[in-house]
Amino acid sequence: MHKLSVVLFSLISLHTMAQTEEAPHSHRMGRALKFPNVPGYHVMKCDLHMHTVFSDGAVWPDIRVAEALMDGLDAISLTEHLEYQPHKADIPHPDRNRSYELALKEAKDHHLLIIRGSEITRKMPPGHNNAVFIEDANKMLISDSVEVFREAKRQNAFTFWNHPMWVSQRPDGMATLTPMHKMLIKEKLLDGIEVVNDGSYSDEALQIALDNNLTIMGTSDVHKLVDWTFGVPKGGHRPITLVFSKDTTAAGIKEGLMNRRTVAFFKDLLIGRDEYLVPLVKESLKITSAKYRAKTTVLDIEIENLTSSAFTLKNKSKYTFDSHSDLVTIPAGGKVTIEVKTVNKINSVELSFEVLNAINAPNSHPTVSWSTQTKL
Amino acid sequence: MHKLSVVLFSLISLHTMAQTEEAPHSHRMGRALKFPNVPGYHVMKCDLHMHTVFSDGAVWPDIRVAEALMDGLDAISLTEHLEYQPHKADIPHPDRNRSYELALKEAKDHHLLIIRGSEITRKMPPGHNNAVFIEDANKMLISDSVEVFREAKRQNAFTFWNHPMWVSQRPDGMATLTPMHKMLIKEKLLDGIEVVNDGSYSDEALQIALDNNLTIMGTSDVHKLVDWTFGVPKGGHRPITLVFSKDTTAAGIKEGLMNRRTVAFFKDLLIGRDEYLVPLVKESLKITSAKYRAKTTVLDIEIENLTSSAFTLKNKSKYTFDSHSDLVTIPAGGKVTIEVKTVNKINSVELSFEVLNAINAPNSHPTVSWSTQTKL
Amino acid sequence: MHKLSVVLFSLISLHTMAQTEEAPHSHRMGRALKFPNVPGYHVMKCDLHMHTVFSDGAVWPDIRVAEALMDGLDAISLTEHLEYQPHKADIPHPDRNRSYELALKEAKDHHLLIIRGSEITRKMPPGHNNAVFIEDANKMLISDSVEVFREAKRQNAFTFWNHPMWVSQRPDGMATLTPMHKMLIKEKLLDGIEVVNDGSYSDEALQIALDNNLTIMGTSDVHKLVDWTFGVPKGGHRPITLVFSKDTTAAGIKEGLMNRRTVAFFKDLLIGRDEYLVPLVKESLKITSAKYRAKTTVLDIEIENLTSSAFTLKNKSKYTFDSHSDLVTIPAGGKVTIEVKTVNKINSVELSFEVLNAINAPNSHPTVSWSTQTKL
Amino acid sequence: MHKLSVVLFSLISLHTMAQTEEAPHSHRMGRALKFPNVPGYHVMKCDLHMHTVFSDGAVWPDIRVAEALMDGLDAISLTEHLEYQPHKADIPHPDRNRSYELALKEAKDHHLLIIRGSEITRKMPPGHNNAVFIEDANKMLISDSVEVFREAKRQNAFTFWNHPMWVSQRPDGMATLTPMHKMLIKEKLLDGIEVVNDGSYSDEALQIALDNNLTIMGTSDVHKLVDWTFGVPKGGHRPITLVFSKDTTAAGIKEGLMNRRTVAFFKDLLIGRDEYLVPLVKESLKITSAKYRAKTTVLDIEIENLTSSAFTLKNKSKYTFDSHSDLVTIPAGGKVTIEVKTVNKINSVELSFEVLNAINAPNSHPTVSWSTQTKL
Repeated sequence: MHKLSVVLFSLISLHTMAQTEEAPHSHRMGRALKFPNVPGYHVMKCDLHMHTVFSDGAVWPDIRVAEALMDGLDAISLTEHLEYQPHKADIPHPDRNRSYELALKEAKDHHLLIIRGSEITRKMPPGHNNAVFIEDANKMLISDSVEVFREAKRQNAFTFWNHPMWVSQRPDGMATLTPMHKMLIKEKLLDGIEVVNDGSYSDEALQIALDNNLTIMGTSDVHKLVDWTFGVPKGGHRPITLVFSKDTTAAGIKEGLMNRRTVAFFKDLLIGRDEYLVPLVKESLKITSAKYRAKTTVLDIEIENLTSSAFTLKNKSKYTFDSHSDLVTIPAGGKVTIEVKTVNKINSVELSFEVLNAINAPNSHPTVSWSTQTKL
Repeated sequence: MHKLSVVLFSLISLHTMAQTEEAPHSHRMGRALKFPNVPGYHVMKCDLHMHTVFSDGAVWPDIRVAEALMDGLDAISLTEHLEYQPHKADIPHPDRNRSYELALKEAKDHHLLIIRGSEITRKMPPGHNNAVFIEDANKMLISDSVEVFREAKRQNAFTFWNHPMWVSQRPDGMATLTPMHKMLIKEKLLDGIEVVNDGSYSDEALQIALDNNLTIMGTSDVHKLVDWTFGVPKGGHRPITLVFSKDTTAAGIKEGLMNRRTVAFFKDLLIGRDEYLVPLVKESLKITSAKYRAKTTVLDIEIENLTSSAFTLKNKSKYTFDSHSDLVTIPAGGKVTIEVKTVNKINSVELSFEVLNAINAPNSHPTVSWSTQTKL
Repeated sequence: MHKLSVVLFSLISLHTMAQTEEAPHSHRMGRALKFPNVPGYHVMKCDLHMHTVFSDGAVWPDIRVAEALMDGLDAISLTEHLEYQPHKADIPHPDRNRSYELALKEAKDHHLLIIRGSEITRKMPPGHNNAVFIEDANKMLISDSVEVFREAKRQNAFTFWNHPMWVSQRPDGMATLTPMHKMLIKEKLLDGIEVVNDGSYSDEALQIALDNNLTIMGTSDVHKLVDWTFGVPKGGHRPITLVFSKDTTAAGIKEGLMNRRTVAFFKDLLIGRDEYLVPLVKESLKITSAKYRAKTTVLDIEIENLTSSAFTLKNKSKYTFDSHSDLVTIPAGGKVTIEVKTVNKINSVELSFEVLNAINAPNSHPTVSWSTQTKL
Repeated sequence: MHKLSVVLFSLISLHTMAQTEEAPHSHRMGRALKFPNVPGYHVMKCDLHMHTVFSDGAVWPDIRVAEALMDGLDAISLTEHLEYQPHKADIPHPDRNRSYELALKEAKDHHLLIIRGSEITRKMPPGHNNAVFIEDANKMLISDSVEVFREAKRQNAFTFWNHPMWVSQRPDGMATLTPMHKMLIKEKLLDGIEVVNDGSYSDEALQIALDNNLTIMGTSDVHKLVDWTFGVPKGGHRPITLVFSKDTTAAGIKEGLMNRRTVAFFKDLLIGRDEYLVPLVKESLKITSAKYRAKTTVLDIEIENLTSSAFTLKNKSKYTFDSHSDLVTIPAGGKVTIEVKTVNKINSVELSFEVLNAINAPNSHPTVSWSTQTKL
């Protein structure tokens, strides 16, 4: 039926959605993505690359807001292409900030930050890049590929290279820095790089981030619907960037991004630098009890996974387990009991695991330890 | 990632969707709606009331096409409001046929008919009405509430009254004909009436249809996403109108609509006139075997439900059953074996059921019979 | 591994089972059967017909106890055949009370009553019958088919006719009283009759119960595993008898049975006399809120189903509904909101439904009413 | 209802079970365990350790047969305790072969081998051991702990040490050889060792098997119900031993066991010697297509998992992937596409993975390679 006003309509519909979508089937934790904070930082769930009808996307900005609320995100940015406007015949609006403004209005009664951003869309080099935390998208309409980055920086933006592994611009999918990218990095015009975009993860992009001190980014780059593109009803999720922020503001997120404090989350993978990745993993898995089984020296340690990511662990402690090999998996939101054979009863115990779904460099995984007192 | 062309993008995405959505969880038959043809008619699955960004909807027309393809529909109409244009600041396009044209282009490689239509949006009376199979939406922009119907008829349109039970226009939700509606009907300017709209079904609207020989309509009136509004991942579905058409063309659908040959489908209810409802029910449930259990006079009759609607049946035959009471339910796409106690072995048997989920008038349900030869 | 003691083993295993079985998939309420008490009576969930290895069953009595605990039953009886002992070569134990005693020991730390019983196994007439609440099964080994009932009554047993519709003894499946049954009833030697046994329900048996003032019984008659026979992992359940008892003791159950206070539960059907069926239905469905939707005279009434049985209702009130036809189904453990069009705002409202899944006679269903104050 | 004969009853019930259990929910492949054969050997699915009411189990042998048929096993052995007979008061049968004989009769129309066996039940040392492929269980009732092994060998039995990690006999759960075990091994009286029993896996037991050339065994040791103990409705499974046999006979299985040709399967782990483990893994995962994505050098390789075990793989090839890190998981019965970045188009490609769920020694996993031609 025809609704009395768009605003009322949105609120009612969001309420309906929440009910409909609250308990997706194959995901124990529901659809909303969950990660714990870490000592010193709020872990902010951000998706800073997506599109609406205001460039080549298929939805009005209110759908992007609704999706983000259902996904439990803290911040999104609608990064419309500046140069690529396939809907221009129908949406000729000269103000490139419209998408942002409509989303901002839609989100105003919700805990969701809308970050002003836009995509700089070029052939290689420099390919596609995003500038977020800009002040005015209209001023970004500059044809010179370097000058547009300078404008982004004049607006105090955070910039990152999109999908450097994109086969349409790199048929071998092997991300490599061009001289132009090197220059942009050198001149501090380029801050980050997507290691994850849509359905792609790139070891090469991760290596570039590590070698050049770029911020590690993961984004959905969604054009149609998050639910369809990422199979949400079956337990799938969009890629996001976890930003380690000193507070819960947009400014805090930007400061975190500028200082490289991120972990990308993609299909049960957590990709980041050890200094952020290790504390995140440590907070993600919590020992909830550790007690000896009666008349034995077998210590039952219950571990709870507080996150939306399954964990795949390889035992690196000196102990063997009673019902697991060295491979232990803990489903998203699940609990697992590991039966540790300590031979003698001991007062405290340390478990160490190589975390195979955490990536600190190509083919490299951090080893993380958890200590706990035991109940004799 | 940024796609090379909108057309290519759409096709790729549709392919991805099909894979993602092929086996929704709580619906045995998958998401695509299924109903059999009946003798003499193709049963065409139509949703003739919905919105896109070109009026107060939240998606580009390509999403409506994608949803319809996933739902297995035969025809849709994007019935944008002519008078209510909340996105006008951004989409000022003067041509009210744009939505139709964009959908037509998107659907061109698929078996999906796009019907040109528009919504006539007024206070009561006459409230909201749709005109579909029009020739030019622009010419429908007429302020006089009767004259616009005359224009629709000049364009050979099929017209119907939308959500007569809408509480925003009727706070008691009791659909009743106004003098203006009576006049429109009398002058053959109004052909049908929505008995189902979005989440609502109205006994009063059904009675109006029967009393005034109007076409019985069921529509989604979707503004946001079909998946969210109707809980598709949990097995829900949008309301549709089944049109009994002499062929599979748009002209055939229109001829069927004009001649009142419809059944509305809504949450496992089938609502229509007996002459179309009864053949549909008869074809929907098929006896797939009927054989006597060894050494007994108990006849095991297996019935298969070929449709996307569960059936709720009340036994009206002279027999009792071995493992059912008089209440028999057959899930969508499911099979049930009814163990009929015939006392003597007989060569053929007739089952009769009051079909409680089929509605031929308020609180009234057809009784339908199935005969079959038995295997002694 | 070999367990230290059978008792310990059982307790540990029950604990494991509880965890494993707590949230069966297709059953919102879990596997444990749930029905509310009614004014004046405890509603006791009883299965008084089943077998173990001590006659022709396939499990030791401890499995029957474990199954009953998982199913949330209040009482069971292991009714071994006295005459049919296919395992006699291996289990020659002369004491026919063994099965009872082993179950009693197994259940001693649980809230589960074990009722001493046995099956009297004859050709027709009188076919198979059960005597429960007996004092000594050994004394029931009497060859005369009438005398054995007299012995049962000397032991103050409750007796009932098993599966009168059984095709092995009645190839047409039509339960009818034989002269011997009439005599047994007349002499007060036969108290009840199975209207439901295993996978069968019989309208004819129900009519016999009503015509002859017999207790209406429903039993599993399980021989192998409850989980397999009744498809428990897919949401199936065993048939049971709900006994309306003045207390929660075995004596209370017996008194209830002797006084015909029962309802049989079988595949979402509740079968009984109106005086017990109607209060049970009334307590089963609770109105949890009733408030008018803003600016309308549509009253949203939320109804919660407190039971393990789905309900299928047919509207018999004077109102029509906004989103339902006259057919309303409420899933087991689910909630449904019915949108009642009261035309004017009223302070209290009465809903009346014919309860199609409740059976008070063949093809007959009680009409039950619920009243509630409204929130204007 | 009472069945006419036990044999008929069993057949009917098995048929019913098959229908009920055919599509367990959380297991894509259904309940029946599946592993491919390998070049030169039939891979026979065997569970050679379990109990019935004839020792301390809770079911009649026919249930063990039914469970094995549903689990798709090739062979089982009912290894009743000889010395521990808690049901002796009720089942005093002096013939210790009864359990075997009853299972044999039950299985006679099915493809299921019943292996005669018995458990030798002692304190440590030598703890519990099984002798399977014996000729007469009665002759195994010998009190001397060594002499009973000699009798087993006189009967040409295959013998193995049960649950050497059992905390009731080893409170630290650390399997270690006692002098008596060393002697038994030296004198060729002990052939195998359980590395998996019920819910336990032991790295130490695996090391003992490797150091002493013992057959690696995995068994259920089920006492109650397989469905409950191993959570089958939720996708769990019993542990089994895969025996690499030259034919599909009992003699073939025995020859395979005697020659150490086994892999134990337990909760998605495959535990065995490289010479059997590696071919099994290689046959388990099949490359079903390998073609270059249009206009790229990215090779899409589709891998199908033919088994009931999920696989967890770590990339050891020289390539990186487009949408996976070095960690790849392939669900049981599932398909995964790995997008290999080969930089140049090549005619054939080799993938190498460390198979983390395959164990050839404590904390050690084989690396397995698959080659395929590509479609340019």
